[in-house]
Amino acid sequence: GEKCVEVGAKLLVDGTQSVGALPMDVKEYNIDALICAGYKWLFGPYSIGLAYISDAFEDGVPLEESWMNRTNAKNFSGLTEYEKAYHPGAGKYNVGETSNFILIPIIREALKQISHWTVPEIQAYSKKLIQPLIAYLKNLGVEFESDKYFSSHLFALKLPAEVDVDQLKINLEKNKVFISVRGQFLRISVNIFNDAEDIKQLIKSIEATIKK
Amino acid sequence: GEKCVEVGAKLLVDGTQSVGALPMDVKEYNIDALICAGYKWLFGPYSIGLAYISDAFEDGVPLEESWMNRTNAKNFSGLTEYEKAYHPGAGKYNVGETSNFILIPIIREALKQISHWTVPEIQAYSKKLIQPLIAYLKNLGVEFESDKYFSSHLFALKLPAEVDVDQLKINLEKNKVFISVRGQFLRISVNIFNDAEDIKQLIKSIEATIKK
Repeated sequence: GEKCVEVGAKLLVDGTQSVGALPMDVKEYNIDALICAGYKWLFGPYSIGLAYISDAFEDGVPLEESWMNRTNAKNFSGLTEYEKAYHPGAGKYNVGETSNFILIPIIREALKQISHWTVPEIQAYSKKLIQPLIAYLKNLGVEFESDKYFSSHLFALKLPAEVDVDQLKINLEKNKVFISVRGQFLRISVNIFNDAEDIKQLIKSIEATIKK
Repeated sequence: GEKCVEVGAKLLVDGTQSVGALPMDVKEYNIDALICAGYKWLFGPYSIGLAYISDAFEDGVPLEESWMNRTNAKNFSGLTEYEKAYHPGAGKYNVGETSNFILIPIIREALKQISHWTVPEIQAYSKKLIQPLIAYLKNLGVEFESDKYFSSHLFALKLPAEVDVDQLKINLEKNKVFISVRGQFLRISVNIFNDAEDIKQLIKSIEATIKK
């Protein structure tokens, strides 16, 4: 953010893997546009994304030219009297069919839930929750990012070579732990709805592959 | 279709207002690409569209570059070993998040319903249903397209000047007829779930504005 201001560049952030679980202050970080898929940490459905677009893009031209984003779109009787002007503000960047009466209510409820839990609390809870796992993995020789660059709600780690990945997948499934195993890497995500027992089952699943 | 073949042009059709209610044979009409929004005559939800894309676009480049449309996308463990090649066939033109587990089941059920009714039957039923309305309107001096260019499931008409449009809107609402009134034009759509009583209510709604 600071560097961008220095050189006069705009800062666009894909917040898909952070927003909803990690505080993200667009003012503090000088973010000009923050775009998020809705289906990850915002608990929304597929096919919906949310974006913050600052005044820096007030004069921009949207990728998708939707008639709904023009100034006279609310008047159905005069639909064919096209006006060229866009709605003021970020609304002109809306995708078509924004009045999505199936998906919008879903994501609205999801955002209410997040507001109820609060984002700092989600992050703090996640941090506390994973402490036993981090301790166990460090003991196995797994290295982690420094605290400054580490997020507790979502993190990847390289499994030690002695872990049999195929066996791990079997164990995870058996113990009902749902984790993305990608090659020798694990991508772990936690949230308020996880508890210490989940972490215990994950440690158990890894431990059982090493004994082999 | 024939003209396009003659001059070597490709024929792209927006079938949104026809497919599902009017037979549309891509082979018969030499259609190279047929694109439909899902939420009109296909009874689908917002945010889903369907397309037929012929071999004419086999070498095309999709507007949206989704990793799901590349050849190795099914192997999650090797996700970062990107392959440049697209899936063969029209699948490479798929939008992101095609595995939409909320919207896809909805449109699948909708298509089953249409297949059950059959498209020719929807069109034939609509044609029969609107006969009293057409007769009534012709009697009022309303002109219609010739049969060759007329679709019975969806048609627009210019109301006679003696119809008070504002009063008509009130009457339609009172009689629970849901029709798009745009200026002096009506856009009428019918389907299997409409019956003679609906048409009667519509005629009644118009008739009551003329007596004023």
